[in-house]
Amino acid sequence: MQITFCCAATDAEPWLNELRAALPGATVSLWQSGAPAADYAIVWQPPQVFFDEQPQLKAAFNIGAGVDALLRLNIAPTTQLIRLDDAGMGAQMAEYVCHALIRHYRDFDADDTDQHAGIWQQREVLPRSEMPVGIMGLGVLGQRVAKAVAQFDFPVNGWSRTAKVVPGVRCFSGADCFHDFLAASRVLVSVLPATPATRDLINRDTLQRLQPGGYLINVARGSQLVEEDLLALMESGHMAGAALDVFRTEPLPKDHPFWMHPKIHITPHSAALTIRSESIAQIASKLAALHSGKPVAGLVDRQRGY
Amino acid sequence: MQITFCCAATDAEPWLNELRAALPGATVSLWQSGAPAADYAIVWQPPQVFFDEQPQLKAAFNIGAGVDALLRLNIAPTTQLIRLDDAGMGAQMAEYVCHALIRHYRDFDADDTDQHAGIWQQREVLPRSEMPVGIMGLGVLGQRVAKAVAQFDFPVNGWSRTAKVVPGVRCFSGADCFHDFLAASRVLVSVLPATPATRDLINRDTLQRLQPGGYLINVARGSQLVEEDLLALMESGHMAGAALDVFRTEPLPKDHPFWMHPKIHITPHSAALTIRSESIAQIASKLAALHSGKPVAGLVDRQRGY
Repeated sequence: MQITFCCAATDAEPWLNELRAALPGATVSLWQSGAPAADYAIVWQPPQVFFDEQPQLKAAFNIGAGVDALLRLNIAPTTQLIRLDDAGMGAQMAEYVCHALIRHYRDFDADDTDQHAGIWQQREVLPRSEMPVGIMGLGVLGQRVAKAVAQFDFPVNGWSRTAKVVPGVRCFSGADCFHDFLAASRVLVSVLPATPATRDLINRDTLQRLQPGGYLINVARGSQLVEEDLLALMESGHMAGAALDVFRTEPLPKDHPFWMHPKIHITPHSAALTIRSESIAQIASKLAALHSGKPVAGLVDRQRGY
Repeated sequence: MQITFCCAATDAEPWLNELRAALPGATVSLWQSGAPAADYAIVWQPPQVFFDEQPQLKAAFNIGAGVDALLRLNIAPTTQLIRLDDAGMGAQMAEYVCHALIRHYRDFDADDTDQHAGIWQQREVLPRSEMPVGIMGLGVLGQRVAKAVAQFDFPVNGWSRTAKVVPGVRCFSGADCFHDFLAASRVLVSVLPATPATRDLINRDTLQRLQPGGYLINVARGSQLVEEDLLALMESGHMAGAALDVFRTEPLPKDHPFWMHPKIHITPHSAALTIRSESIAQIASKLAALHSGKPVAGLVDRQRGY
């Protein structure tokens, strides 16, 4: 079995070594233009020429959860696209979202300010019932996030394209229920994939439908948020703040107003990083399944966009 | 049924109103010296004279989880002491501990610093397996905290006086296993009650036994921590930081070194505040149980100290 590795912004050496150790029956090589035809590929933001030269690929494994960059390329229809499901990202997403939510809900920033000023001052927080959390996207990652948030007794709403049933989560689905979902939520969390349907989804109208004092946590993709609409609604006071890990342009441009905004916390698209060991274990097990004709989780539906 | 209310630093009016609404068959009065004998009392840090004048009390409900202040008083042996169990404090403790743990583990403070400096820079975090969390105290609150931490896939150890079995938690018990528990942990969380046995328990020897780069989260009582030992071990580099909600002297004295320490986050004994509505509901249900001779949870064992 020939496996080719083509991942941008990734230190290839440890990946190649660990892949070889995990797949002793395979030949694993770093791709370069003109390389021989491979059976399978492991990719992250590969160039178009990669797929142009490797039309025979049976499958390409994307070492991340989001396949939006991949789907902008021309890829032979016979090449199956497979994304990581979880592989350590679920726990990271859950901890990022819970940290941001609790930091906001408990106003721990105010405690930090008090500490620096030498002030000893308790403050009351809102009843938890007034901080319902709405999670958009109820796939593997979204359900993991929802479960973690529910653990702290926040009311949890979930919204997904198709109907889901998740214990402890009030589930809404489809465009018809979107406004009801928003009206029931004060904190909005996006774990949605980037697709044409989710582009600009978090805009002025969406945010305005949240309960007053809304809060946004975006760990999905920057293309979903109309950034100036968030800024305008923070100016008006309707939105109380945001924790953002993703942006329309990354790295975030130097002169972007998010950098200096006192109520917006930003992180450099690091909410959930690929964990090499867990990713390789998952790829090895999926390769074995593919090889014996069994179904694999994380198969991308190109029409749907994830 | 006569109920007397004697709670320091508490706005009595809403408590009295809500208690009267919840207990229509009872007479609920604010205690003052010379008040008539009552059947039951609701207390928070009452003065000695309160119990001197009310030796006939059948039971006193403490509107907090810690009864250490109460046990320093002389109280008739026929007065049962009952503490709140959870009543909304479990979720608060769990969110405080998880927030402090994740803030440290993910180094979100560094992200804040980067944001202020306009720097876009991802950083790798340790594998979760290298951040085992040890929780001292596995009562109602400790188990709630342990469950919340385990949710994020951290290895969780628990230590308690008597042996416990908690799913997902590696349980240690008794003095014999204390060193093994510490050696297996990098983050130490205290949810223990303040008793003679836990006084000064978190000292130089204890902290030194944690894995290097240790972190302390104290949401229990300040008397458990030898504060200068923590400072010395942070100086030596063995301890990486601490999140402290409780102190030997509260409010924390103005000149205390914790105020300005860059790696110590402090909060003003606010990790878990008493929630009036839930506390009153719990007291009402326990009164009904007592009245009909049924066992109630949260009965204080004065010998044991909690």
